[in-house]
Amino acid sequence: MGAKPLLSTCLSPALIPLYDLSNTIVVVIDIFRATSTICTALDNGAKAVIPVATVEECLRLEKEKPEFITAGERDGKVIDGLQGGNSPLEYSPEVIKGKVLALTTTNGTKLLHLVKAADEIVIGSFLNLDVLCQYLVNSGKDILLACAGWRDKENLEDTLFAGAIIHKIEGHFQSTCDSSFMALSLYRQSLEAPSLLDFMKSGSHYHRLARFHLEQDMAYCCSINKHPIVPVYKAPFLLPQEVSSLSEMENF
Amino acid sequence: MGAKPLLSTCLSPALIPLYDLSNTIVVVIDIFRATSTICTALDNGAKAVIPVATVEECLRLEKEKPEFITAGERDGKVIDGLQGGNSPLEYSPEVIKGKVLALTTTNGTKLLHLVKAADEIVIGSFLNLDVLCQYLVNSGKDILLACAGWRDKENLEDTLFAGAIIHKIEGHFQSTCDSSFMALSLYRQSLEAPSLLDFMKSGSHYHRLARFHLEQDMAYCCSINKHPIVPVYKAPFLLPQEVSSLSEMENF
Repeated sequence: MGAKPLLSTCLSPALIPLYDLSNTIVVVIDIFRATSTICTALDNGAKAVIPVATVEECLRLEKEKPEFITAGERDGKVIDGLQGGNSPLEYSPEVIKGKVLALTTTNGTKLLHLVKAADEIVIGSFLNLDVLCQYLVNSGKDILLACAGWRDKENLEDTLFAGAIIHKIEGHFQSTCDSSFMALSLYRQSLEAPSLLDFMKSGSHYHRLARFHLEQDMAYCCSINKHPIVPVYKAPFLLPQEVSSLSEMENF
Repeated sequence: MGAKPLLSTCLSPALIPLYDLSNTIVVVIDIFRATSTICTALDNGAKAVIPVATVEECLRLEKEKPEFITAGERDGKVIDGLQGGNSPLEYSPEVIKGKVLALTTTNGTKLLHLVKAADEIVIGSFLNLDVLCQYLVNSGKDILLACAGWRDKENLEDTLFAGAIIHKIEGHFQSTCDSSFMALSLYRQSLEAPSLLDFMKSGSHYHRLARFHLEQDMAYCCSINKHPIVPVYKAPFLLPQEVSSLSEMENF
């Protein structure tokens, strides 16, 4: 039996250049709210999500592709001229089924564009935790958990989600990465809180978004396994991994 | 009463540009081993420590300043041509009393040169924990805990020490910084381990240094309050803060 694949964690987009992305699946993590919104939209029937790096490009798509739903935020606020924001609650099946969502966000979509050299890019959130973990274990590849953070600083909710993944899959990987250890330690601390959402309230981003009355969004983003799909990046689209291939995977 | 000063934590030297250093005391933290060695040398009677950014500059001082003790390491190994390494155990009073130590290290001295815009720079290690905390509380200034990490990645021992400081002084400061929260959470987890040293053994750097048979060094670096001085940077020197002014400070 060969050596186990590596599991590493990058807590800030600014540190991505320190990691070798070859033969690696990068999990993009932006819990509040980009990756939670992507999982929701795709599970609710969106044909695809296009992660767009800049507001300008998203505004251009709004003009040129009237069939798209264009959406985005900067600093937690909806952008004028786009149809939607970055709330998972906006993308019910009635709204999104059969549509393409072009989405630009402060941290998450920017990070996705930073890791394009990866062998594969997938999207992680509490909404797809277990199915994502299955996917990673079955891949046989090295894994980098890439946290979007907040303006290049580490943040609580993304680190915590990295810890939740590590907690589930660490036995299948080797890790010599202190940031993985610290994320796992944080996750273990969170298990002592009354709830995941309650623990999140210690984070700066929770309070930033609460000022915009987005508490319902954040509660939604803390729902575990509500949207059991794995969004996979096939440039320029994020597409839901076929359910058939997921169901064929061994349990872990 | 005015607002409390800010307490922030930077877990990687690569993220230092994200922080405003004005009116701020930066605590440089490189537990294994630069900042532990600096506290040891100064408490054991060194007149001053000169933190040197490059090996080349240290080799030049070795030639030009025969009265200095030049020392340094890269990647945990002593540098050929210098007199000493980066082990606190090398700098007993017999060796260092009355001498100037010119020291270059992989991460710690590099970080010190990155934060020169700070209002004040001090050196932190478990060896001077309590006296350092007193100093910070009494300063009335904003504080940035700056971790040296390992080659720009976060590491366990420096983050843990930041958490130990926060644990002691958080009531005196305001913090909206997720990295401070995460460091504190890590420190709280460490209290459940049989000992601080035992918890450190989960870190990658412990194992890196153990391969060079430096376990004794690391045990020494985990001794709490063994060298109760505050090294303060007065370019180009690190000097011990006068004991008299420390003893005048109020308890916290």
